[in-house]
Amino acid sequence: MNYLFGVDIGGTTVKIGLVSLEGKIVDKFEIKTNTDNNGDSILVDIRDAIYDYLNKNNISHQEVLGIGFGVPGPVCNNVVNRCVNLGWPVKDVKKEFLQLLDWVPCVLCANDANVAALGEMSACTLDVNSAVMFTLGTGVGGGIILNRKILDGANGAAGELGHLKLDRVHNFTCGCGLTGCLETVASATGVVRLAKKYLETRQSVLSDVEDLSCKVIFDAAKAGDQLAIDVANELGDYIALAASIVAATVDPELFIIGGGVSKAGTYLLDIIKEKYQKYAFRPVKDTPFVLASLGNDAGMLGAALLAKPLN
Amino acid sequence: MNYLFGVDIGGTTVKIGLVSLEGKIVDKFEIKTNTDNNGDSILVDIRDAIYDYLNKNNISHQEVLGIGFGVPGPVCNNVVNRCVNLGWPVKDVKKEFLQLLDWVPCVLCANDANVAALGEMSACTLDVNSAVMFTLGTGVGGGIILNRKILDGANGAAGELGHLKLDRVHNFTCGCGLTGCLETVASATGVVRLAKKYLETRQSVLSDVEDLSCKVIFDAAKAGDQLAIDVANELGDYIALAASIVAATVDPELFIIGGGVSKAGTYLLDIIKEKYQKYAFRPVKDTPFVLASLGNDAGMLGAALLAKPLN
Repeated sequence: MNYLFGVDIGGTTVKIGLVSLEGKIVDKFEIKTNTDNNGDSILVDIRDAIYDYLNKNNISHQEVLGIGFGVPGPVCNNVVNRCVNLGWPVKDVKKEFLQLLDWVPCVLCANDANVAALGEMSACTLDVNSAVMFTLGTGVGGGIILNRKILDGANGAAGELGHLKLDRVHNFTCGCGLTGCLETVASATGVVRLAKKYLETRQSVLSDVEDLSCKVIFDAAKAGDQLAIDVANELGDYIALAASIVAATVDPELFIIGGGVSKAGTYLLDIIKEKYQKYAFRPVKDTPFVLASLGNDAGMLGAALLAKPLN
Repeated sequence: MNYLFGVDIGGTTVKIGLVSLEGKIVDKFEIKTNTDNNGDSILVDIRDAIYDYLNKNNISHQEVLGIGFGVPGPVCNNVVNRCVNLGWPVKDVKKEFLQLLDWVPCVLCANDANVAALGEMSACTLDVNSAVMFTLGTGVGGGIILNRKILDGANGAAGELGHLKLDRVHNFTCGCGLTGCLETVASATGVVRLAKKYLETRQSVLSDVEDLSCKVIFDAAKAGDQLAIDVANELGDYIALAASIVAATVDPELFIIGGGVSKAGTYLLDIIKEKYQKYAFRPVKDTPFVLASLGNDAGMLGAALLAKPLN
């Protein structure tokens, strides 16, 4: 059998998946991310874990055709440019990993949100060559796939959709230091921020909730609470506006909505789709939206597919 | 000698350029665009004009390595999808032209704003592989070049930057039927629209001008008229905001500002560059901006380069 490894490096764990050439995750395991000494041992630990796994499972080197990496930072041509969560400075992941393990035919590296988009696109039932994914988590991430390839951009900043400056009403300050970024209003924290702002002047079932969360707000919206409904609609409106802008820029075949916020499911998706009709330029009105389906496996799968040999 | 032809098809004239493989326009001529019968004769007229030109100039067929077309409508894979100005319905330009003239090794077709971006990028002194051009004319057009190739998108709508919904203050109605599009405020007509709105309540040297135009407004701004300065700043602000959004989406190496409005020159460019610093996400802060340099020749040159054989 031939396999790929997909390695999704996060700040606390490294998720490693054994993936078939058909794009199915055959097996998966995790190791801890050791961020000591600027994350110096991370790639060595991954190499060792892969060797271990191959030995225990009687898989030979020859069966491994590629290893792909997803990392939480900007990546250009397989080079990571400062990855705060890992402690990495500029790091040529492809080159360094091939020095540790030189028998793999293909080693490639990309940003984690971008490989997740690649993974989700491949898992989608629609047969498309291009897609844009919005990952609505603590922040808002994004990934752009064109011609089945990740777009990384001149500075590794392509698909940084959380930093589209689309809000000129609230002007909340973003972690990036600027104001009005999409993620200040359309992330799990953004939705809580919006709810809290409205709760200052309006009554709602949320008024007495101590630990407001995205889930609590969406549950209240689904149960008919008007303030929660307004917040859900506003989040959906910003995502729809962002999608209309991305559509007039790269015009993908498909939009994918993922991340923790997307657990609100079709309730959220329907809002986004309805609002999108209000903003979308005629030629892109019919672009479909789907929910992400892979959850935490998307990064592993996409990282593996990144390193898949061309036919 | 080997040559390319670049054909820029407009609603009134077809501009045809003879271009060297090094990307220099060697000669150029024009024919009228005959839009009778749904523009049925346009490609035949172009074929005849090219034959005529080759005969008169003693250039043999073998010297022509490619013919590229730029057309004023959405194009996907060389197929034009309704081109109102020419009367064209869906038209496979590559296929139809090759039926008229079958000895050319390469015939390709793309949207006119996109080929103009390709032309301007090639003429720029900076050595880049990706660029985004804003064409600020009667409307706002755009073109996105990635990896030296035009991005056309799933519906031929990639780079339709005039329809980014970025204005939620004025909400002028756009020709596309929606409101808030970039071109309602950041085009030659947009700048006049803004000035007229402010002239309703403010005094300015423009108050007594009968035929307000973009040029008159920028001249007044350069001469120190406060209302005109405010309008110029507002236009620059919208372009800068749009560029920051495009940068966080495709992250090009270069922005090019072209079209009639760009005749305001470095005065406008400096405003855009300054405002861009306010909106740009850190990794893309240093992306350079240049003014387009080719004027009406950009489309011809870009169309020719589209059909340039790969080395």
